[in-house]
Amino acid sequence: MIIDKLIERIKATGNPTVVGLDPRLNYIPNFITEKYFTKYGNTPKAAAKSMYKFNKCIIDAVFDIVPAVKPQIAMYERYGIEGLKAYDKTCKYAKSKGLIVIGDIKRSDIASTAEAYSDGHIGKVDINGSVYDSFAQDFITLNPYLGSDSITPFLKDCEAYEKGLFVLAKTSNPNSGEIQDLMAEGTPIYEKVGALIEKWGESTIGQYGFSSVGAVVGATHPEQAKRLREVMPHTFFLVPGYGAQGGKAEDLAVCFNEEGLGAIVNSSRGIIAAHMKEEYKSCYADERNFAQAARQACIDMKNDLRRCI
Amino acid sequence: MIIDKLIERIKATGNPTVVGLDPRLNYIPNFITEKYFTKYGNTPKAAAKSMYKFNKCIIDAVFDIVPAVKPQIAMYERYGIEGLKAYDKTCKYAKSKGLIVIGDIKRSDIASTAEAYSDGHIGKVDINGSVYDSFAQDFITLNPYLGSDSITPFLKDCEAYEKGLFVLAKTSNPNSGEIQDLMAEGTPIYEKVGALIEKWGESTIGQYGFSSVGAVVGATHPEQAKRLREVMPHTFFLVPGYGAQGGKAEDLAVCFNEEGLGAIVNSSRGIIAAHMKEEYKSCYADERNFAQAARQACIDMKNDLRRCI
Repeated sequence: MIIDKLIERIKATGNPTVVGLDPRLNYIPNFITEKYFTKYGNTPKAAAKSMYKFNKCIIDAVFDIVPAVKPQIAMYERYGIEGLKAYDKTCKYAKSKGLIVIGDIKRSDIASTAEAYSDGHIGKVDINGSVYDSFAQDFITLNPYLGSDSITPFLKDCEAYEKGLFVLAKTSNPNSGEIQDLMAEGTPIYEKVGALIEKWGESTIGQYGFSSVGAVVGATHPEQAKRLREVMPHTFFLVPGYGAQGGKAEDLAVCFNEEGLGAIVNSSRGIIAAHMKEEYKSCYADERNFAQAARQACIDMKNDLRRCI
Repeated sequence: MIIDKLIERIKATGNPTVVGLDPRLNYIPNFITEKYFTKYGNTPKAAAKSMYKFNKCIIDAVFDIVPAVKPQIAMYERYGIEGLKAYDKTCKYAKSKGLIVIGDIKRSDIASTAEAYSDGHIGKVDINGSVYDSFAQDFITLNPYLGSDSITPFLKDCEAYEKGLFVLAKTSNPNSGEIQDLMAEGTPIYEKVGALIEKWGESTIGQYGFSSVGAVVGATHPEQAKRLREVMPHTFFLVPGYGAQGGKAEDLAVCFNEEGLGAIVNSSRGIIAAHMKEEYKSCYADERNFAQAARQACIDMKNDLRRCI
């Protein structure tokens, strides 16, 4: 079960942090971008090559102290085909370094279409008898708005290929309540979705009591997270919103159980753009040390989280 | 306004049909696949080249009698980077033939990430002052589960670049009611979402009274569609579910107003795989005529729809 592998890596590193690999060109040091812009001009190819090189340096600097990375596919899709090549290479490189890869793709569609997404992201494609992985992630994120039959095709591939999902329950953004907090028969929608996620995970519960079908629960909504932790005892949480979006370690302690398990917390900008933050600038003044700043930010985040869980 | 262009093309062709370009390898005639499998082996590249060639033949056969095409990105993402190249080329070729391109991507994310999707799909990216379109669609579909701030970044690009959206309200799949039909304060969720979509479209209402922010409303749920038509007077509908999924022309008449406007109806398999259906096999026995079968299916669908609207 992939959830067991994730939990074992969290235990081994002592760090329930996932590094959000969401590069923007303005995060990337000049010594990287200059090389590619000189070689390829001001093109999507140069942007994509810069992103991949940036990610590779960060992966090399953090792979031994964090369990997982979470590339956000939108940041790559922005640059079209060239950007998606950088996404694909990033996933593959992270896996080669032993990291668990959570593809933040938030896909959703009717069953026959969901099957195509599942084939491409966590399953396999069969081309005249030759079998390929397309985008080879360990987990992917999904949007639940279409209901159970939009999730079922992914569950089959989770079982067949030891893969996992994180389905949106309560997201971290300011307007998440517009739909997710509406009360239906006395229960908020995010909790109704939570109950569905528990059900979707029933057949993939691993040795630590958590299933390979997790939930996305924002750090910015601690009360809702607390409630979800109670009603979703077998569901592992992927928690966005820590740091730049305002979520604090104190707020997200409710996502963890007494053994300190139950969630993995994402930070993107706070780690990959640490070299641009005042607190790291003094120690990592040379832009060539940007990945070391990211490493230090992972250690600082670990200490901050462990203070509270 | 892109919605005006879409309506004008619907009027010019007299046909509110959008052709779903969702190719599967088993739809593609042997004379196409054999060529590419011989040249490139049993590879994603051969699959993708076959898909593009298939789409190109269909576009050439139907571009003068339908207003729009709707490629489903999942069918291409399935084959990774090579598949996405075929998606991109399909969008660009359809546009070059004057068709409106509705990218069925159903993306959703928090604002900063939504901005990246918007840049890549309907907006532009600026790379050191050089400006690019990445995936150049006219409309894209979006999932509303995250609320208003997940949609706002797309609205800006709709205004800046004459683009449009279709946001999921009530989807065509069997389990769509699990979340979408839940009653919140006496109103079903899909209707709450409908009210949000009307609001999101306020600033892009064109000369026919419809906005460039449309809604996806499944043909398989006529009662809900009727209600939505009433509460969303300025919202154009993209209607999936006709044909293969069970939606009938009689059922979706409620999506149109008295002038016969208000919706565009998708058919995928029913058109692009018409050559495999009994009713077309006799006239189009030679597989090289598959695109002519698709053309005839567009004409038959037009006549079927016009019987009811």
